Amino acid sequence: MLPPLLIEPLVRAALLEDLGRAGDITTAACVPQHIQAEAILVARQAGTIAGLDLAATAFQLVDPGARFSPSLIDSARVEAGDVIARVGGPARGILTAERVALNFLCHLSGIATATREIAERIAHTNCRVTCTRKTTPGVEKYAVRCGGGMNHRFGLDDAILIKDNHIAIAGGLRAALVRARTHAGHLVKIEVEIDALAQLEEALSLGVDAVLLDNMTPAELFQAVRMVNGRATTEASGGITVQTACDFAETGVDLISVGWITHSAFSLDIGLDI
Amino acid sequence: MLPPLLIEPLVRAALLEDLGRAGDITTAACVPQHIQAEAILVARQAGTIAGLDLAATAFQLVDPGARFSPSLIDSARVEAGDVIARVGGPARGILTAERVALNFLCHLSGIATATREIAERIAHTNCRVTCTRKTTPGVEKYAVRCGGGMNHRFGLDDAILIKDNHIAIAGGLRAALVRARTHAGHLVKIEVEIDALAQLEEALSLGVDAVLLDNMTPAELFQAVRMVNGRATTEASGGITVQTACDFAETGVDLISVGWITHSAFSLDIGLDI
Amino acid sequence: MLPPLLIEPLVRAALLEDLGRAGDITTAACVPQHIQAEAILVARQAGTIAGLDLAATAFQLVDPGARFSPSLIDSARVEAGDVIARVGGPARGILTAERVALNFLCHLSGIATATREIAERIAHTNCRVTCTRKTTPGVEKYAVRCGGGMNHRFGLDDAILIKDNHIAIAGGLRAALVRARTHAGHLVKIEVEIDALAQLEEALSLGVDAVLLDNMTPAELFQAVRMVNGRATTEASGGITVQTACDFAETGVDLISVGWITHSAFSLDIGLDI
Amino acid sequence: MLPPLLIEPLVRAALLEDLGRAGDITTAACVPQHIQAEAILVARQAGTIAGLDLAATAFQLVDPGARFSPSLIDSARVEAGDVIARVGGPARGILTAERVALNFLCHLSGIATATREIAERIAHTNCRVTCTRKTTPGVEKYAVRCGGGMNHRFGLDDAILIKDNHIAIAGGLRAALVRARTHAGHLVKIEVEIDALAQLEEALSLGVDAVLLDNMTPAELFQAVRMVNGRATTEASGGITVQTACDFAETGVDLISVGWITHSAFSLDIGLDI
Amino acid sequence: MLPPLLIEPLVRAALLEDLGRAGDITTAACVPQHIQAEAILVARQAGTIAGLDLAATAFQLVDPGARFSPSLIDSARVEAGDVIARVGGPARGILTAERVALNFLCHLSGIATATREIAERIAHTNCRVTCTRKTTPGVEKYAVRCGGGMNHRFGLDDAILIKDNHIAIAGGLRAALVRARTHAGHLVKIEVEIDALAQLEEALSLGVDAVLLDNMTPAELFQAVRMVNGRATTEASGGITVQTACDFAETGVDLISVGWITHSAFSLDIGLDI
Amino acid sequence: MLPPLLIEPLVRAALLEDLGRAGDITTAACVPQHIQAEAILVARQAGTIAGLDLAATAFQLVDPGARFSPSLIDSARVEAGDVIARVGGPARGILTAERVALNFLCHLSGIATATREIAERIAHTNCRVTCTRKTTPGVEKYAVRCGGGMNHRFGLDDAILIKDNHIAIAGGLRAALVRARTHAGHLVKIEVEIDALAQLEEALSLGVDAVLLDNMTPAELFQAVRMVNGRATTEASGGITVQTACDFAETGVDLISVGWITHSAFSLDIGLDI
Repeated sequence: MLPPLLIEPLVRAALLEDLGRAGDITTAACVPQHIQAEAILVARQAGTIAGLDLAATAFQLVDPGARFSPSLIDSARVEAGDVIARVGGPARGILTAERVALNFLCHLSGIATATREIAERIAHTNCRVTCTRKTTPGVEKYAVRCGGGMNHRFGLDDAILIKDNHIAIAGGLRAALVRARTHAGHLVKIEVEIDALAQLEEALSLGVDAVLLDNMTPAELFQAVRMVNGRATTEASGGITVQTACDFAETGVDLISVGWITHSAFSLDIGLDI
Repeated sequence: MLPPLLIEPLVRAALLEDLGRAGDITTAACVPQHIQAEAILVARQAGTIAGLDLAATAFQLVDPGARFSPSLIDSARVEAGDVIARVGGPARGILTAERVALNFLCHLSGIATATREIAERIAHTNCRVTCTRKTTPGVEKYAVRCGGGMNHRFGLDDAILIKDNHIAIAGGLRAALVRARTHAGHLVKIEVEIDALAQLEEALSLGVDAVLLDNMTPAELFQAVRMVNGRATTEASGGITVQTACDFAETGVDLISVGWITHSAFSLDIGLDI
Repeated sequence: MLPPLLIEPLVRAALLEDLGRAGDITTAACVPQHIQAEAILVARQAGTIAGLDLAATAFQLVDPGARFSPSLIDSARVEAGDVIARVGGPARGILTAERVALNFLCHLSGIATATREIAERIAHTNCRVTCTRKTTPGVEKYAVRCGGGMNHRFGLDDAILIKDNHIAIAGGLRAALVRARTHAGHLVKIEVEIDALAQLEEALSLGVDAVLLDNMTPAELFQAVRMVNGRATTEASGGITVQTACDFAETGVDLISVGWITHSAFSLDIGLDI
Repeated sequence: MLPPLLIEPLVRAALLEDLGRAGDITTAACVPQHIQAEAILVARQAGTIAGLDLAATAFQLVDPGARFSPSLIDSARVEAGDVIARVGGPARGILTAERVALNFLCHLSGIATATREIAERIAHTNCRVTCTRKTTPGVEKYAVRCGGGMNHRFGLDDAILIKDNHIAIAGGLRAALVRARTHAGHLVKIEVEIDALAQLEEALSLGVDAVLLDNMTPAELFQAVRMVNGRATTEASGGITVQTACDFAETGVDLISVGWITHSAFSLDIGLDI
Repeated sequence: MLPPLLIEPLVRAALLEDLGRAGDITTAACVPQHIQAEAILVARQAGTIAGLDLAATAFQLVDPGARFSPSLIDSARVEAGDVIARVGGPARGILTAERVALNFLCHLSGIATATREIAERIAHTNCRVTCTRKTTPGVEKYAVRCGGGMNHRFGLDDAILIKDNHIAIAGGLRAALVRARTHAGHLVKIEVEIDALAQLEEALSLGVDAVLLDNMTPAELFQAVRMVNGRATTEASGGITVQTACDFAETGVDLISVGWITHSAFSLDIGLDI
Repeated sequence: MLPPLLIEPLVRAALLEDLGRAGDITTAACVPQHIQAEAILVARQAGTIAGLDLAATAFQLVDPGARFSPSLIDSARVEAGDVIARVGGPARGILTAERVALNFLCHLSGIATATREIAERIAHTNCRVTCTRKTTPGVEKYAVRCGGGMNHRFGLDDAILIKDNHIAIAGGLRAALVRARTHAGHLVKIEVEIDALAQLEEALSLGVDAVLLDNMTPAELFQAVRMVNGRATTEASGGITVQTACDFAETGVDLISVGWITHSAFSLDIGLDI
């Protein structure tokens, strides 16, 4: 569950953008003020739900009299036709908040569903799926966890991740790592991107917490995992799809990272029926 | 082109979220302060570009000394391998801004590319493709225009769109429309969702600016367009894919609206090489 | 009624500006903390009320224990001496919020009163009075509606209004209109400023939703309305006063727009008595 | 001159409200991107100018390439037809910023003009005109100074002003004043509202910095000024108009305070011609 | 007591900075969601308490179900071991808010304690201790009052304080004072910094509300107070410590101002025990 | 060096708080607009400098024409009388920005100086000094680095730090650690607070990245470091002063953490002379 202090500004901003300067003029014109309504949120396709708190917040910010009663919790699986939540109260508020509530719920559930699909295919291994930093600001990271995935860094400041460009500019892997170890606080982990097996042993000998094995084939990964032999966390990235996830996971890597579960997520189809 | 006044806060917020409390600790550790670098942004797949101004803003906000030189303009088509832009200046700034710049550029280009794919398939008709309001806050609407699409409402306050739930609560189509016409300012258009041909003639007789023909087959749409006969703008929605877009467009409707070009957009693959 | 989500930030900002860094030092010094008070808001002159929700919000933001009970609703008419609302609760909160509450209420009621004065004088025609975009940011548009007026555009982005300067730069009326029709979404209306009857037929032949007939005499307007003959909404502006409003309205125009009801509004005199 | 740090957020907020979500769609449609324009700001009626920095900021925020060259400075008098400023640069930016720039300039110049009118009528006395706290948040106080007026309190926290309601709740003038003197820092002045001459001597004997003589006739004020005899600053308020200002000023009071110069100010008519 | 409207944004900002992008990951990992806890805030050293409202706000913002029950009020003295407050409710919320709540409470209580120490040493004189403007933004001024001190200016805009640099640039004390008197509103006090007795008589003859006697010895101050003889408030500053405060106060000055009670305050040791 | 994107909002907020609603009325009154001035920032006591970028930003935000030329860089040591920087430009801007610039510079330099004092006393060991999370929001962490110290966590979300209260509520050390390892991403480190040697072996056997050895004597720490034997980073906290720092450092711990270098820092005395 995300802290309300973090959720509320996101939902408020989305509502204010949607309300614009004049508010919901359709509802103000067509719906008399005192009419009450009951609505259900229904899954129109199967998937994994994420974002119920954001949907609830949308209805309650528009009208504190709205009652949002989820039928399940984030991370739950749904089939098409399942009722996800009920919302009752002033009809105006329900209609005005509907789209923002559904935007968050459908988008995050889409991420959770995609993550879950991979997570299940690799469930027989010790490997976990993780997202990347290729997200737009927001709560996508949370949805990944709802789908059974792990989170990578949240930003540029919560771990050191040395990539090829850093290595090139620093003057080589050794120079980059020595600089990094001097600057890093004692609670900051260091991960290095490894593009070829030749770099791997040097990185391990210098001491790193994790290696990002980029664009390697399952065969190369299998060999890399043997070389690492528990001295660092191993993460594979590059070209991993739902179909190939299992091949990557079975190489023994600790993590496979998949950018598209957040940056190219589809939106789970959920509707509101009154 | 979007006004800088609207772009800048979006990019600044994304950068501040990524910088967190301590900034880019990898780059601060690994990259000496005075090193200069030149980088190119390269398309790794074919598509339509949108968001160059946002990418430029990201680099310039992190370091005013960064020089961003686009090789083309928004709406341009690229092939895999095409150089999209060059960015030069302090290496630290380029590396720190890289991900935020690419996040905007890849996401918006993905929308523009999806839009363009539909737009081309219906180019031989008078029909245009339009987005829906199912977006997260931001600049996705602009990307749709870059892809050759039109924009629907920007929010709840810039047009009246009467949907089935409004009609049900207002007590019927006539009641809803009468209320709407009384409240609407003279520069506000009114569109009504029509779920069955039976409702269509009543809506037209009451006077509307546009009709949203929802979940109709091409055959039904063909009939509906004949009934409307120029008395209102016609918009089709529901179940429109890249493959079926042409069938819908050829019915003679003025617009087909497609939610997934924004809410389930893929991210165009673009990389930064130093 | 304006959405609380839009009202609250306005009132909060006004209160924070008034509280400054040290809060209401007079009340903190002179009024013991636990004293309760009952106060009435009384009209000191006749007029039309607007802004009750903003006044209520001011008292409740300063002290959630304040109870604000309006005796009437926005749009109601008052005579001098009428009680508009009662507010009870902690004396400190009532005194601290008083000026901000009254500032909103008096200012918006002044606008509503001025609007009503015109609206009544033209009530026997089909013409409606509308405001212009010459407002400071805020809720003045709402007050115009309370006074029986209509709203013009809310901003630069919710309708196209082509004025003389646009026409001059675009290279003529035809060029401007062709460009506008290409860019406008299907829910965006187009209005054109017409300074002389000679332009009117051209505009109508190109197809516009509304014409702004600027600085014309009633006689010219009468002729213009005949020429338009229902093909577009007609709006008159320029030099319209309380005294002349009727002459303009009786020409048959659909709207008269009057900037001074918002930008030069007087403040309705309302007092708070304990 | 107001500090740019205080002006910029005001102008930016007004522009963002006007731009909405889609920006100036009229100008984007009708005006090609690279056209340059020169415009003049011309007074359409006589008055006193205030707000040039805000107008300049509006143009420059929309387009940093805009050049704003004032022909005079704030506080200057103009006749109808006088050129106030020239603005040159990209035509799009000039047209987009026009309304916001004029809104600030016309509104503040209206305040300055009204203030000046009173200031001149009392110029032969030692009395000065001052505004009240009955303003909407912003820069109106500055405009009053441009018109030759003085400013009263800026908020609830920069001076103690004990009014009738405070006195009633505190249990009398003495109790209120004793409490106030205990709490007030050494740089905080204390003013007391006096509704009848009977209260005046008590207030003076307790020691106050200023007395607000409310709703007194010129004859009563004349007597009050004699009683005060330099022991406190004297301020008259209530029922002061342009016509009666001189009668009040000639009683010998130090200040006359006039709420309507800010809360009911008219807007000075200024136009932009290209 | 500070207005909640001013406190809430400060505490919210501190919490959001501490929560970062992912929230309290330790508590989320280790503490099950539904566990309730009771905790006490205990003084670990003697001092004067300030900031209870800020601590309460921290707990309530994180979890509205938290109950904060102070055992005493701001300004109260505590001994080591005294219970300051009890807080009960969801264990997660209490642990997450703990550090922000204590940061405010310890910092402000440190200021109040330092202020009280001086205030007590000069209690037998008529002199009061005051803070300076050398604070970081926030609520330190309030803590000074809790410790029995007075507040100096809150900012650059609520009084005129002419210092040596102003005098130098204005071209002498007379020129600076004449300019100041012309510009100052009738509720603005004027204080002048006096570095030598020779300047004092000139300042008094020109009329000032207060004199800031800077870096004078107690013997010089004694002489200065005699010269002033009640014509202005006297304030001593420069080199005043806990040990010397009494010597300065006994010279007869009205105020001693001490910057370090805010800018170099220690933090009172307070702990939270579950 | 901190990113300008993070510094600017802090300095802007401090300036806006100081400017209030009316700006620097002393300088506006006393200093003519076009006077130029040159000033130097001079250390009035020995110490280590931090915060030059914040001081520069303060002057430049108030007047872009101000030129700030530091004579040294952050982390440099100064003696009393050393010139730290020169600032030239419009006299008004320099005087208005002076206090905010000095507040940041003196406060951060105080932290850097305190940190340096400890860092030097333990320079002959491998131990480093680190701050704690007991800071007010801002840039204090950076100042610690300028003084030669390391940074602990920046917030609740960038590492897991399991304290006694977490252990108690989770039902023991083992339960807490198992939960933490399940939730932690692969780049998140885990530290555990150890109050007694008996807990230490259990923590190590379960696998932790660091142990926080709280309130132990140097003798106990010496024994703990032997037990850990390189299996985790060791951090000592509790009761560490300038005088005892060396005793703690010589036990072989990797880090000593000292809260007072940030929460009870003194302010380094720096003045501005024109």
